[in-house]
Amino acid sequence: MAAQKVARLISERSIGRLSLYRRLLNVLQGEGVRNIYSHQLAAMAGCTAAQVRRDLMAVGYSGSPTHGYEVPRLIESLREFLDAPGGQGVALVGVGNLGKAILSYFTGRRPNLQIAAAFDSDPYKVNRVIHGCRCYSMEHLAEVAEGQGIRLAIITVPAQAAQAVADALVQAGVRGILNFAPVRLRVPDHVHVEDIDMTVSLEKVAYFARQSAERGSRP
Amino acid sequence: MAAQKVARLISERSIGRLSLYRRLLNVLQGEGVRNIYSHQLAAMAGCTAAQVRRDLMAVGYSGSPTHGYEVPRLIESLREFLDAPGGQGVALVGVGNLGKAILSYFTGRRPNLQIAAAFDSDPYKVNRVIHGCRCYSMEHLAEVAEGQGIRLAIITVPAQAAQAVADALVQAGVRGILNFAPVRLRVPDHVHVEDIDMTVSLEKVAYFARQSAERGSRP
Repeated sequence: MAAQKVARLISERSIGRLSLYRRLLNVLQGEGVRNIYSHQLAAMAGCTAAQVRRDLMAVGYSGSPTHGYEVPRLIESLREFLDAPGGQGVALVGVGNLGKAILSYFTGRRPNLQIAAAFDSDPYKVNRVIHGCRCYSMEHLAEVAEGQGIRLAIITVPAQAAQAVADALVQAGVRGILNFAPVRLRVPDHVHVEDIDMTVSLEKVAYFARQSAERGSRP
Repeated sequence: MAAQKVARLISERSIGRLSLYRRLLNVLQGEGVRNIYSHQLAAMAGCTAAQVRRDLMAVGYSGSPTHGYEVPRLIESLREFLDAPGGQGVALVGVGNLGKAILSYFTGRRPNLQIAAAFDSDPYKVNRVIHGCRCYSMEHLAEVAEGQGIRLAIITVPAQAAQAVADALVQAGVRGILNFAPVRLRVPDHVHVEDIDMTVSLEKVAYFARQSAERGSRP
C-alpha cells in the first residue's frame, strides 16, 4: 500500500528515467555487470546521481553504500514497479508506413507490452496479419478492445484523422495513448497522452546544427 | 544581424514549439484560415498565449492586436527563421525496419530537410535504392557526407552500435543527430543530439494508464 501511494506521486520525468534505467541495466546485465553505483547509472542516463537515488527510492530497493545496487535485483524491482502483473495489450491505429514500422519495432520486444490488435480503414488491410498482428476494421474497435482488455493505444494515422481516432479510443475504454500524429489531442483527464513528433525533433536538430556551424565552433 | 543574435539565445523548447506552430499553421492554411490570435495557436499547441507571443517575437513578425497574425506571413517568417536557405541534407544510418520506416516517413515530406544518403553495414543493402534513397557502405560515410555537404544524421542502429556510429558521424563533420537508439550518446559540445525513445514513451503511457485505472477515475 505504501508503494502504491508513492507511485501516485511520482512525476512523468521520473517514470521516463526509471524506464531508461531498466533498458540500460538490461544492456549491462548482458555484459555480465553485477553491481552499479548511482553515479555510474547517472552518467549513462544523462542525469545526476542524486536524481537516480531519488527515482529508485520510489521502487523500493535502495542498494548499499559500499556495493551500490545489485543489477539483477534492481531490474526485478523496476519490473515489479513498471510492469502490470499480467501484461498490457496495446492497439495500434493506422497501418501505413509508420504504423507498420512501429508494429515491426515492438513485435516481440516487450513481452509485457504487446501490440495485440491493429486497426485501419483500408479494406485491403483489414483481416490481414501484418508483422504477426491481425488488422481489424475501425468499426470493430470497441468490440476488439473490450474482448482483449486493451487499455493502451498507439496512433499512427495522419494529422487530420487523429482526433476522431482518439475520441473513438477513449470511447472504447483506452486510458493511455502514444501519439505520433502532429496534433495536440483533446482527451479527458483520466487519459494519459505521450506525443512523439519526429519532424519537430529533426527540425530542432537542423536548427541547432546550423547555429553551431554559423558560430564556427567546431574545434 | 539582430535576428541572428536573438536566434542564438533561443531555447530548445522554443525551437520545438516554433516547429510545431508551423505544422499547425500549415494545416490551418489548408483549411482556408487567414488570421489567428496567439491564444488560438496556444490552445492548439498546448502552451500559453504569452509563450506563443514570446516565441514568435524571435522570428521577427509580431502581428496586430486587432487582427492577430496573418497565417501566410507567419508561415513565411517561420520558414525564414527555421530553414536553411539552400536546404540541409540528412544521412540515415541503419536501414533496418525502423530505418526504412523513417526513410519512408521523411521522403518528400520536408523538401528543405531531405534524407540524401543512407548507410548500412549489410552488403545486401549497399548500393540499393530504398524509398528513393541510395544506401552506401559505412566505409564511404566521410566521403559521401563531404561530397553532399551533409551535416545532419539520423541514427537507427541497435543500441550496441550507436556510439561507434555517432563517433564516425562526428568525424565526418556531422553537427546534429536525431538518435533513435536507446543510449545517451557522448558527442563534442558543438554537436546537437535529440533522442527519441519509443519504448520509454510507451512504458510511460502504460504506467500512467494503469495508475488511472487503479484510481478508478473514469467517469
